[in-house]
Amino acid sequence: MSNEKQVIGILGGGQLARMMVLEGAPLGAAFRIVDTAETPCAAQFAPTERADWRDLEALAPFAEAIDVATFDFENVPAETAQWLTEHVRVHPGPQALAVAQDRMAEKTLFREIGLDTARFAAIDTRADLDRALEEIGVPAILKTRRLGYDGKGQFRLRDVADADAAWDALGEQAAQHGLILESFVPFDYEVSVIAVRGRDGDFRTWPLTRNWHADGILSLSLAPAPGTEAIADTAFAHARTLAERLSYVGVFALELFVKDGRVLGNEMAPRVHNSGHWTYDGAVTSQFQNHVRAVLGLPLGDTAVRGCSVMFNWIGAMPDMATALAVDDVHWHDYGKSPRPGRKVGHATVCGPDFATVRARVQALAEALGRVEQAAPLLELPVS
Amino acid sequence: MSNEKQVIGILGGGQLARMMVLEGAPLGAAFRIVDTAETPCAAQFAPTERADWRDLEALAPFAEAIDVATFDFENVPAETAQWLTEHVRVHPGPQALAVAQDRMAEKTLFREIGLDTARFAAIDTRADLDRALEEIGVPAILKTRRLGYDGKGQFRLRDVADADAAWDALGEQAAQHGLILESFVPFDYEVSVIAVRGRDGDFRTWPLTRNWHADGILSLSLAPAPGTEAIADTAFAHARTLAERLSYVGVFALELFVKDGRVLGNEMAPRVHNSGHWTYDGAVTSQFQNHVRAVLGLPLGDTAVRGCSVMFNWIGAMPDMATALAVDDVHWHDYGKSPRPGRKVGHATVCGPDFATVRARVQALAEALGRVEQAAPLLELPVS
Ligand SMILES: Nc1ncnc2c1ncn2[C@@H]1O[C@H](COP(=O)(O)OP(=O)(O)OP(=O)(O)O)[C@@H](O)[C@H]1O
Ligand SMILES: Nc1ncnc2c1ncn2[C@@H]1O[C@H](COP(=O)(O)OP(=O)(O)OP(=O)(O)O)[C@@H](O)[C@H]1O
Repeated sequence: MSNEKQVIGILGGGQLARMMVLEGAPLGAAFRIVDTAETPCAAQFAPTERADWRDLEALAPFAEAIDVATFDFENVPAETAQWLTEHVRVHPGPQALAVAQDRMAEKTLFREIGLDTARFAAIDTRADLDRALEEIGVPAILKTRRLGYDGKGQFRLRDVADADAAWDALGEQAAQHGLILESFVPFDYEVSVIAVRGRDGDFRTWPLTRNWHADGILSLSLAPAPGTEAIADTAFAHARTLAERLSYVGVFALELFVKDGRVLGNEMAPRVHNSGHWTYDGAVTSQFQNHVRAVLGLPLGDTAVRGCSVMFNWIGAMPDMATALAVDDVHWHDYGKSPRPGRKVGHATVCGPDFATVRARVQALAEALGRVEQAAPLLELPVS
Repeated sequence: MSNEKQVIGILGGGQLARMMVLEGAPLGAAFRIVDTAETPCAAQFAPTERADWRDLEALAPFAEAIDVATFDFENVPAETAQWLTEHVRVHPGPQALAVAQDRMAEKTLFREIGLDTARFAAIDTRADLDRALEEIGVPAILKTRRLGYDGKGQFRLRDVADADAAWDALGEQAAQHGLILESFVPFDYEVSVIAVRGRDGDFRTWPLTRNWHADGILSLSLAPAPGTEAIADTAFAHARTLAERLSYVGVFALELFVKDGRVLGNEMAPRVHNSGHWTYDGAVTSQFQNHVRAVLGLPLGDTAVRGCSVMFNWIGAMPDMATALAVDDVHWHDYGKSPRPGRKVGHATVCGPDFATVRARVQALAEALGRVEQAAPLLELPVS
């Protein structure tokens, strides 16, 4: 590739697009965004236009103006992604999107490549649910097959008697999006693989990230995930097989449950991922820059860490920035969004040479911001 | 300070403004740029308007729209900076700009605070030049007092007989900009202090940076500068005194000559500086983010390094990016400018845990790009 300026089109203009722009800019790339909202938060840094995902006429000038398309929003209709491939390079491709958009396809593929999952069954009718509950047992989780995120579109069944309530909550969506019943995995902990694959097949992973959720939303991440030496190679191998099977280009996340030293596949995200945000400040090359490098066909950057990192997600509203920045090696990320309950509005990454140092900084930060409860799972970890 | 979105106005929209925007964006700030050019390279990432520096009427809406003004271009007329202070916070202030804009005022202040300089004299007429040459001796350098940059507006005199040629080259500018004659310092090497001072007086420095120029333009930087333990504290103390004397807020550079273990002040730049570009990739907090933190009144970030860094300046045209990125821990910065001889169009930072590692990467990069000559001064350093 010469240095000719490439225009990267991003479908979706949220914080993922915003960070791709900020981290991709030094490579001399230009960006162009399309979103269904008028002024998504990435619009502050890249020309942005409004269009509906199915309105191919409205998307035509966008497709015309770019050299490669990529995604901030993984639920762009696969038909739109397919149509885009007729006009321009698209990374990741429609097949990867389609798999990640459907929890049935996703878990089926996981099993095909030898990655275990919770037991699962497709649910289209109330009768399907009864049958599946018998087979899978309880506790279980009923989820929409498509369009779920941040734990939305899920119902937990503790008992077979919860079937009515579950159907009341989600039955209406069976026809349009389909449903899936999964056995509940009493996992020991959750990790994610953040991986990147280049156009030339070069494959790299950042160290495993340990994740904690609150109310179904990612709340806290820690990398490198301590005590994961025994599972890391297996996890990375699954991620690589998955990427190769899908001819994947770009960054993706593979979310895993760990139970008794075994990994189970939960889901994949065909894009840069919230659990990889710490790489912006805590790795030699961030997931955002490596995604841009991958889609442009450039050599991938080093995924080594700079010590240890913890990410706090800010949900609903931002804590006080000046208070936070007074703590050493705290890196602030305000997405420029207005506050709203349940909305991801920003994050902070706390870095340091080792876990003990970072733990002390996390404690100082959590106390200063009145977020001790959010930090608790991390503060409870042993400092080995 | 609460998290209310602050608008930072930048006078000048070159690569310095561009990197301030990219590094300041995560703090949730908004930016607005004014420049005398239609589309300077920072315009890709921030709303930009055109105005002449002296056209206060054209600048009024800009001043109205921002919360704090700062500079990418240090030669904004001091009167314009003064006028701005009547409308909005301005960091650094007009006094600091005025001193840095005039080599006489600058060197006079250096001496006042106990920082030695080359011998110097103000030159307004041809007769002044003859007198000064007698006093100062040769070799010497005749420079414009104002508006010099990248070694422009300089004439070197090896002999008193060069006075005619020097006057031919620069005499015309004596009336408008004034001239200064400086004794030539046969320095051992050049270093710069990159420093930042907060609104609360907090003062921090990054480690000393060693610099090499080619054709009067910065070509190569290395940080931390090896073998400078004995002079670092003195250099930092001068920078601090200077900052306090000027009630300075923001990042600045103090360029020093080192001769026989003594430091001499060459000049100060009242802004983020080319010799601090390595901090973007090689320090916990970059000069760009700390400048934004300072002007917003936020706590300053850690200026510690992540190992060792070397910066190559790309002058005139960019080398091939893909070739460069194949080398480990190379960070690319393409300013999005069109090529032009003598123009700073980008830079690359090569990082690593220690000098020996970085030196090997620099060699690999220089060979891959055919830039061995540019890297030579660094490759000649002893690997201690
Ligand atoms: N089968 C399961 N067993 C146990 N816990 C589960 C199961 N499925 C989901 N969870 C819990 O709920 C969280 C969110 O679930 P899931 O990843 O399916 O939802 P999502 O809405 O797609 O989330 P995301 O925003 O992370 O993509 C998981 O990280 C896990 O903590
Ligand atoms: N008095 C001097 N003695 C020896 N070398 C000098 C002297 N003045 C300048 N130089 C050399 O020329 C370079 C540029 O000079 P100076 O910093 O005065 O110019 P400038 O045009 O203001 O540069 P910049 O773009 O770095 O601000 C110096 O870094 C140094 O290498």
